[in-house]
Amino acid sequence: MSERVTIEKKVLSENDKLATQIRAQLKARQIVALNFVSSPGSGKTSLLECTLGALNQELQIGLIAGDVQTENDANRLLRAGGKMVRPIVTGGACHLDARMISRVLPELELDKIDLLFVENVGNLVCPSSYDLGEDMKVVLISTTEGDDKPLKYPGMFRRSSVMVINKIDLLGSSDFDMDRVKENARRINAGLKVFELSCRTGQGLDAWFGWIRSLAHTKKQRSKE
Amino acid sequence: MSERVTIEKKVLSENDKLATQIRAQLKARQIVALNFVSSPGSGKTSLLECTLGALNQELQIGLIAGDVQTENDANRLLRAGGKMVRPIVTGGACHLDARMISRVLPELELDKIDLLFVENVGNLVCPSSYDLGEDMKVVLISTTEGDDKPLKYPGMFRRSSVMVINKIDLLGSSDFDMDRVKENARRINAGLKVFELSCRTGQGLDAWFGWIRSLAHTKKQRSKE
Repeated sequence: MSERVTIEKKVLSENDKLATQIRAQLKARQIVALNFVSSPGSGKTSLLECTLGALNQELQIGLIAGDVQTENDANRLLRAGGKMVRPIVTGGACHLDARMISRVLPELELDKIDLLFVENVGNLVCPSSYDLGEDMKVVLISTTEGDDKPLKYPGMFRRSSVMVINKIDLLGSSDFDMDRVKENARRINAGLKVFELSCRTGQGLDAWFGWIRSLAHTKKQRSKE
Repeated sequence: MSERVTIEKKVLSENDKLATQIRAQLKARQIVALNFVSSPGSGKTSLLECTLGALNQELQIGLIAGDVQTENDANRLLRAGGKMVRPIVTGGACHLDARMISRVLPELELDKIDLLFVENVGNLVCPSSYDLGEDMKVVLISTTEGDDKPLKYPGMFRRSSVMVINKIDLLGSSDFDMDRVKENARRINAGLKVFELSCRTGQGLDAWFGWIRSLAHTKKQRSKE
């Protein structure tokens, strides 16, 4: 299997080179980029929908929505008011990679964008290995999953800067324990920033929107300086 | 990238050879093997726990529980009364493969087993490509995920024989539509057998247990003939 490992290393190093180019391209325009990762069904698209709904008037958000098959997520984001949404259909691949991002990036009007959100394929394993040139990975976990997910999928939680605990309106409908999930996550990554929210009821969204605003705000402030 | 594709094909063909050997080994002992696949958090371990709880006295069930990291799931299955449980920690790999199965199989007393359940890594993409020598793949989806999952992850639903819709006690807490998920699944795989259940409330479990019994029953009947 060593031949396979060598090829994987080569693919990853090619990916890293491309990711570095993307990062430079975004940084030159002071665009903050977030890579949203989670299991299928944790609510990435829902969170992006309500974020667009709330901030679309004040911020210019570019979106890249990846799926194995269908453009369902991209269409949902367009319906939610997304003005600059590009789908990537991986056609079987279990993650987005930097090459896919660099192909669609020229289709977005980067000079007009404050923030770039990338919605990765729903998968808690493979996307953790592929740098897309983002500033931060945001990992979602929902209260209907097990609270030991950070321990079982440590790579993703280690490489993320932010953890969003979604569907808090369903707390109590399972054994999911809020303190335990945070403790588990911080055992893997002590510096993880945590948001607790429900896209359905709106609980906790203000803090999330505030943080998103602060990312873009930084850019606008800088450009005035 | 063609070099990578060639290597992938080689890995898959080696996997298929091993899977064929495993299948022959199980068939010789009339053991029916199920490969449980789903997103992280759909409830594979919960379903196996309650199945063990209900059928442990009448059937000998061997279990192989795969996880990227931790033996949490294997430990839960042991606590649920599993007598023959073996963990596989993939250490980063996003799926089980036939080589991993063939390494732990000798640790199970195959002559005493009626059924073999393999709990795959939580991932709706990669495990679909790896035959483990099972008779059937059982894909789980829970009502807290999107009902378009079969369209977005068609490979898994196409290669599965059974779809378990779990957490039906939470129906109504989201936009998940039972008819739509079945319609979506059958567009991908018209022959899919469907169970609707809740491990939490017990709803629908009798039909599931009955089907599991019928798989083992077939074996016991045959051995009398």
